[in-house]
Amino acid sequence: MNRLLLLNGPNLNMLGKREPDVYGKITLKALEEQLTAYVEEKQWKLDVFQSNHEGELIDQIHASEGKYRGIIFNPGGYTHTSVALRDAISSVNVPVIEVHLSNVYRRESFRHQSLLAPVCRGQISGLGAKGYFLAARAFMEEDERKDD
Amino acid sequence: MNRLLLLNGPNLNMLGKREPDVYGKITLKALEEQLTAYVEEKQWKLDVFQSNHEGELIDQIHASEGKYRGIIFNPGGYTHTSVALRDAISSVNVPVIEVHLSNVYRRESFRHQSLLAPVCRGQISGLGAKGYFLAARAFMEEDERKDD
Amino acid sequence: MNRLLLLNGPNLNMLGKREPDVYGKITLKALEEQLTAYVEEKQWKLDVFQSNHEGELIDQIHASEGKYRGIIFNPGGYTHTSVALRDAISSVNVPVIEVHLSNVYRRESFRHQSLLAPVCRGQISGLGAKGYFLAARAFMEEDERKDD
Amino acid sequence: MNRLLLLNGPNLNMLGKREPDVYGKITLKALEEQLTAYVEEKQWKLDVFQSNHEGELIDQIHASEGKYRGIIFNPGGYTHTSVALRDAISSVNVPVIEVHLSNVYRRESFRHQSLLAPVCRGQISGLGAKGYFLAARAFMEEDERKDD
Amino acid sequence: MNRLLLLNGPNLNMLGKREPDVYGKITLKALEEQLTAYVEEKQWKLDVFQSNHEGELIDQIHASEGKYRGIIFNPGGYTHTSVALRDAISSVNVPVIEVHLSNVYRRESFRHQSLLAPVCRGQISGLGAKGYFLAARAFMEEDERKDD
Amino acid sequence: MNRLLLLNGPNLNMLGKREPDVYGKITLKALEEQLTAYVEEKQWKLDVFQSNHEGELIDQIHASEGKYRGIIFNPGGYTHTSVALRDAISSVNVPVIEVHLSNVYRRESFRHQSLLAPVCRGQISGLGAKGYFLAARAFMEEDERKDD
Amino acid sequence: MNRLLLLNGPNLNMLGKREPDVYGKITLKALEEQLTAYVEEKQWKLDVFQSNHEGELIDQIHASEGKYRGIIFNPGGYTHTSVALRDAISSVNVPVIEVHLSNVYRRESFRHQSLLAPVCRGQISGLGAKGYFLAARAFMEEDERKDD
Amino acid sequence: MNRLLLLNGPNLNMLGKREPDVYGKITLKALEEQLTAYVEEKQWKLDVFQSNHEGELIDQIHASEGKYRGIIFNPGGYTHTSVALRDAISSVNVPVIEVHLSNVYRRESFRHQSLLAPVCRGQISGLGAKGYFLAARAFMEEDERKDD
Amino acid sequence: MNRLLLLNGPNLNMLGKREPDVYGKITLKALEEQLTAYVEEKQWKLDVFQSNHEGELIDQIHASEGKYRGIIFNPGGYTHTSVALRDAISSVNVPVIEVHLSNVYRRESFRHQSLLAPVCRGQISGLGAKGYFLAARAFMEEDERKDD
Amino acid sequence: MNRLLLLNGPNLNMLGKREPDVYGKITLKALEEQLTAYVEEKQWKLDVFQSNHEGELIDQIHASEGKYRGIIFNPGGYTHTSVALRDAISSVNVPVIEVHLSNVYRRESFRHQSLLAPVCRGQISGLGAKGYFLAARAFMEEDERKDD
Amino acid sequence: MNRLLLLNGPNLNMLGKREPDVYGKITLKALEEQLTAYVEEKQWKLDVFQSNHEGELIDQIHASEGKYRGIIFNPGGYTHTSVALRDAISSVNVPVIEVHLSNVYRRESFRHQSLLAPVCRGQISGLGAKGYFLAARAFMEEDERKDD
Amino acid sequence: MNRLLLLNGPNLNMLGKREPDVYGKITLKALEEQLTAYVEEKQWKLDVFQSNHEGELIDQIHASEGKYRGIIFNPGGYTHTSVALRDAISSVNVPVIEVHLSNVYRRESFRHQSLLAPVCRGQISGLGAKGYFLAARAFMEEDERKDD
Repeated sequence: MNRLLLLNGPNLNMLGKREPDVYGKITLKALEEQLTAYVEEKQWKLDVFQSNHEGELIDQIHASEGKYRGIIFNPGGYTHTSVALRDAISSVNVPVIEVHLSNVYRRESFRHQSLLAPVCRGQISGLGAKGYFLAARAFMEEDERKDD
Repeated sequence: MNRLLLLNGPNLNMLGKREPDVYGKITLKALEEQLTAYVEEKQWKLDVFQSNHEGELIDQIHASEGKYRGIIFNPGGYTHTSVALRDAISSVNVPVIEVHLSNVYRRESFRHQSLLAPVCRGQISGLGAKGYFLAARAFMEEDERKDD
Repeated sequence: MNRLLLLNGPNLNMLGKREPDVYGKITLKALEEQLTAYVEEKQWKLDVFQSNHEGELIDQIHASEGKYRGIIFNPGGYTHTSVALRDAISSVNVPVIEVHLSNVYRRESFRHQSLLAPVCRGQISGLGAKGYFLAARAFMEEDERKDD
Repeated sequence: MNRLLLLNGPNLNMLGKREPDVYGKITLKALEEQLTAYVEEKQWKLDVFQSNHEGELIDQIHASEGKYRGIIFNPGGYTHTSVALRDAISSVNVPVIEVHLSNVYRRESFRHQSLLAPVCRGQISGLGAKGYFLAARAFMEEDERKDD
Repeated sequence: MNRLLLLNGPNLNMLGKREPDVYGKITLKALEEQLTAYVEEKQWKLDVFQSNHEGELIDQIHASEGKYRGIIFNPGGYTHTSVALRDAISSVNVPVIEVHLSNVYRRESFRHQSLLAPVCRGQISGLGAKGYFLAARAFMEEDERKDD
Repeated sequence: MNRLLLLNGPNLNMLGKREPDVYGKITLKALEEQLTAYVEEKQWKLDVFQSNHEGELIDQIHASEGKYRGIIFNPGGYTHTSVALRDAISSVNVPVIEVHLSNVYRRESFRHQSLLAPVCRGQISGLGAKGYFLAARAFMEEDERKDD
Repeated sequence: MNRLLLLNGPNLNMLGKREPDVYGKITLKALEEQLTAYVEEKQWKLDVFQSNHEGELIDQIHASEGKYRGIIFNPGGYTHTSVALRDAISSVNVPVIEVHLSNVYRRESFRHQSLLAPVCRGQISGLGAKGYFLAARAFMEEDERKDD
Repeated sequence: MNRLLLLNGPNLNMLGKREPDVYGKITLKALEEQLTAYVEEKQWKLDVFQSNHEGELIDQIHASEGKYRGIIFNPGGYTHTSVALRDAISSVNVPVIEVHLSNVYRRESFRHQSLLAPVCRGQISGLGAKGYFLAARAFMEEDERKDD
Repeated sequence: MNRLLLLNGPNLNMLGKREPDVYGKITLKALEEQLTAYVEEKQWKLDVFQSNHEGELIDQIHASEGKYRGIIFNPGGYTHTSVALRDAISSVNVPVIEVHLSNVYRRESFRHQSLLAPVCRGQISGLGAKGYFLAARAFMEEDERKDD
Repeated sequence: MNRLLLLNGPNLNMLGKREPDVYGKITLKALEEQLTAYVEEKQWKLDVFQSNHEGELIDQIHASEGKYRGIIFNPGGYTHTSVALRDAISSVNVPVIEVHLSNVYRRESFRHQSLLAPVCRGQISGLGAKGYFLAARAFMEEDERKDD
Repeated sequence: MNRLLLLNGPNLNMLGKREPDVYGKITLKALEEQLTAYVEEKQWKLDVFQSNHEGELIDQIHASEGKYRGIIFNPGGYTHTSVALRDAISSVNVPVIEVHLSNVYRRESFRHQSLLAPVCRGQISGLGAKGYFLAARAFMEEDERKDD
Repeated sequence: MNRLLLLNGPNLNMLGKREPDVYGKITLKALEEQLTAYVEEKQWKLDVFQSNHEGELIDQIHASEGKYRGIIFNPGGYTHTSVALRDAISSVNVPVIEVHLSNVYRRESFRHQSLLAPVCRGQISGLGAKGYFLAARAFMEEDERKDD
């Protein structure tokens, strides 16, 4: 079951198309492919899912139970407003690392608070698309240690 | 038209599966069956609906007009964040009783405020699954009185 | 020891006499009699006590230890201001259900916060005098379960 | 490409059916027809879309890119809670005018803050259904000027 | 029934004895006598009551119903903390004028808010013992007018 | 120099013409005449001044130095916003009693704070036009005492 | 009496001269002339008035009673600070539409709150000089309907 | 007059009976006896008083004038809510040391503010029952110095 | 055009007459003469203007465009409340140095915030009348540098 | 290892030299000598350390591990601002009693919050230099008990 | 110049010694050695520095200019309180990644705000010691790309 | 003893090297030399000191007693966070003028509050390096006056 889930929230389907100075030039498709390749290099699997619908993200998190070693999750704008997503993360045993492409602390003040952070294992922000790769690595290396 | 609607919001499909110390051991399915039986004993009907999608809950509330004597509603995490659900409740003539399994006032401070409470008829919280039964009773006995 | 305490705080002696649109038409005396009858039907006992004095309510809560299966408590205006009553509830082993006749969340903002809620088992609000009956039922049915 | 999008958020499908003192008597269907007629008079086209689902509204905004000269958007209750919708508006090049039927500043304080306003071109509120017509005019006259 | 009640709250029994620079030199007893004389000159009656106990003040207000044309009330420190007294004033038909000896707006910030003011007819503050006489006059002259 | 100044701020020229349920039916002119008569009965003089201009009110307060035993001041909307008027009151030796026709504590929350109250001698509010007469009496009786 | 008043507050005399990126290039004089022409086309009249003095704006609003079908009002900086102007609007029967040239929600946070909005009929902001024309149209079309 | 008063507020009669992990195991009676013995060793006297009634505590403080060198006061829950007790302490010349058994700063945030602290001589908190002994010592040693 | 404007706001006409412990003993007239002499020594000119009227100060700032190298401005109480004055300063190209006689940070908390500071070049406060001279020097020396 | 550490933070080296009305007349040196003598009387040892450097205080706390039965700590101004000192106290097993010479609750509001209090065993404030002696006694007597 | 700086702030010298459940079991020395080895594997160099002194951390950041490709910085408690460190980071051209061992968002609310985050490139938190390795990798891989 | 101290806080050693658009182009060394020359022209002496260490700045302020006529102090980032520096300034008799190069009121909101301002004689901000010269002049001219 060496499998990870890459979960992207609202507006991340627009990645690379709009506001590249804030979010970078890579498209979501390219990012998903590169991350898949990176993970497969380590003999792991990656599933990917993106939705603009809060409910679908919740459904996906519920469905992750028992299937994944970890979820790499960029919750987009739901980061700051969704108690329901927070409860979904709490309701499963799969650890989540929250990733933000931009440095949210340089932006509007309502982006400085994450409702999800307290129930995630950790956060990586401001490092662009690389943040996803670091999160994947964090899960995979942790796994190596456990296998020792 | 002696009919009630049991409406459960996000993550309540996980009831009984996760965090039983917070939410109790009964599953949603069992709860729905027991409440149906309880209501039918009084010659009433119960419809049940659960969704993790805010929009589907709104649709359901709109559709309740003229069909139900009351809605027993556990809005889960949307309790604290959804103006849209509040407006939906205001937009129909069906009274709503808000039910929370846990005592939300013992938990994180963002759970202490309900955006829905001011437009519901009343609230029952902290009494576990029994809260649903008490809410059903409140609607059914009220009905008896009216029939007098 | 199948006994409950009905505890009413400040101004509830005026019940039924004033502001019936907010609090209902039933007098405190009638309510106490009806609730006593309701409880006795189940072979339980009910003691009743009302006071406008914060200190007397505290004394009564202290005295409840070892005497009651539960306290049905409408703390009136002390709900929002009394740390001392909160500490009193914490200091005994008797569970308390907080009852409010009106939907406090529709009223002035200082009524939206209950200092007592976090130390009570649960709350019922907005359901008028029926709230007391539901609270009694919650205690009595719980008891049945324990007896199984 | 002389085309506008009329986008209505949660509960606006109930327009004219409920709370006419707050929102007016016209139904959504009638409003959509009248606005279409009004726009076609000027040789423009109007597409209409309503949803109670935050995710569908986001999808629709993404799909508007390159198709519309402007979006007339009444975001309903999502006005005050949706960072995701705000990000969606930022992610496309189509200008948005926010319309509210009622004067939101006379209502509950949580309705006084719009998360979307800073990323919209402008707002019209409190003028009832006429607000939609004024917004359409604002887009169409602007276009005229550009054509000069 | 040309009768007024002079109601003084906590610490006003110390009037004239302590902090005369803040509260003036007249004792409560002297004040009560002078105000009684002043009221009797106009063929009215005055009852006086002082207590440091919130509950006794509430009891007294309840008992005032049907007995007085008005209550002249200096609630002392309970002004800023007592929802229960506020509810008591709301529960009777007797109008209340709130009187403060000192200018509370020059003192600590917690004294700037009165929980009682919104349910009183009016307030007089900062005019020392004279405030009581002005309040009495306000009630008595109002009466004269009604008698015309 | 037995002379008082009646100073009325913005919108009080509309007294009696608009919103009589809030401010009463008496016009400013009638009020000024009645108060003049009342004051002259005690062998005092009254000057009257009304302006909607903050600067003119400040000028008038400056000019009051050495001319008046007291100012009866209804600052209207400037009560809550004018540091400049506060400084003007502080800059002269003439005592000021702040008068409000309505009970400002029952109205919008921004009306609950007076920037002027801390530099006035006292306040009378909620007693309608009678408040002006009580304030005049407070100044005149104080004077009597001093003459003893 | 088909007459409207265009009322401009502080600094709008500088329109077109300074900060054209924020407020546009049209001068106040040109705007007044164009709006007059636009209104006269519909057989209506327009009066115009601009002042940097809060008191003069209040005087003008008082004088509008019985003379105008509506006031198009850009209150400039007084929008956020003037309770006195708010009370002036409340004191007359003439409806007011608040207009802002810039999108105030993109600017400093103290510009996000309008003290006047709750007493105006509606607001139009962020649409530049066009906002004035839309407001005029809103008043004139409303009138047409009434004449039917 | 070498006499001290030990004053204990609401719920301290439950000392040693409930929540010993928070408040310690010693009963109030044992504490009063031990402190009496400790004080008598130094040829001083100790009076003790406990009440759950705010009004009785105020009465007791008033009665302390001229009788005690100091009051050792644990105000319990009234610490955070009672302006009336604060005014009572201000109204007498007897110095007060505020004692809390638990470290209130580790507990709920509403316990972090003491309304009484600014009018007490000092505070001792978090040192359990020993805090009372240290407070007694502080008064008695101060006295020794004055006797030199 | 080596010319400066000395602009003084509300209550500064009272300078030297009242509260000399806060504002110093020099009168406004003397200050204006001394500053004129000081400026003329450097072959510059000084115009002076004082008003208690917010609108007149705005008018004066508008009129300063193209006439002065700088404005030395003590806005008095308008410092903390006037968005309109802030916008006036933004609307002209003349740099402004804000001067306060007293150390406003030692006074009431509402004096700690300046609405004008962000649009002024700089501020000098707490240095008494000398602050005006330092501000003049700052403008004149800057000018010298530019002439190099 | 019967040893205590007396740790004094910033500005306490000025003790007795400046502001004696706030902090008392005793110098730090005298205080250290008297407390040493007091502690040695009980066959204990006292080490003393004062620094104005936050980092040195942290170093000293780290070095205390395994050396002291307790630390008597007056953190001066760092009380209210230093998360780093708080973490240092948490990082060692030595209990700390926080001492303040003055009654911090009578002073500026930023002094009312202690970042350190929640991680200290207890606090003593407002009792002047005697506070240090009481803290020493608290540690030493506790030790005696443990030795029983 | 392929060189990184590992900078650790207050209390991180205690790493592995205290509160291992919060911060992990690895000592600072071991961490520094492992990270050095990890970095050297990629032919880079690592310098390490730890201090409890805010000033020394600032000095070190200043000295980093022109010497390092990046700084891996765990600012400990200074994260939440140091404007001076923030300014130091702004004053150099070396990018900084902020690392926290624990998930700060699960801890006290004052730990939820980072004064440094807005001027750092990004943040990694909650991933234990692995966070340092991920930060190093982020810097080293970025470098590789640039070399392409 | 005609001597001044120029005290510069954290990051001011970087002056002229970094962010010249915010802080100007002059280096600290050049500034110190120019200010020394300026002061010596008037037959005064200037000592200079800069440190990034809060503790060293405190030590320096303590050491200033009896040596200087005034301190010209730019506290940098400690302006907003250091209660300890505030207490240090309060602990000596030497007057301090706080200088800021940039207009802090245009920057982040945490820079708008100075903990030091209330204990300094005055502040000069936003006038760049000239602010130091004006502060020196303020001290030296004051001295001249005293010598008269």
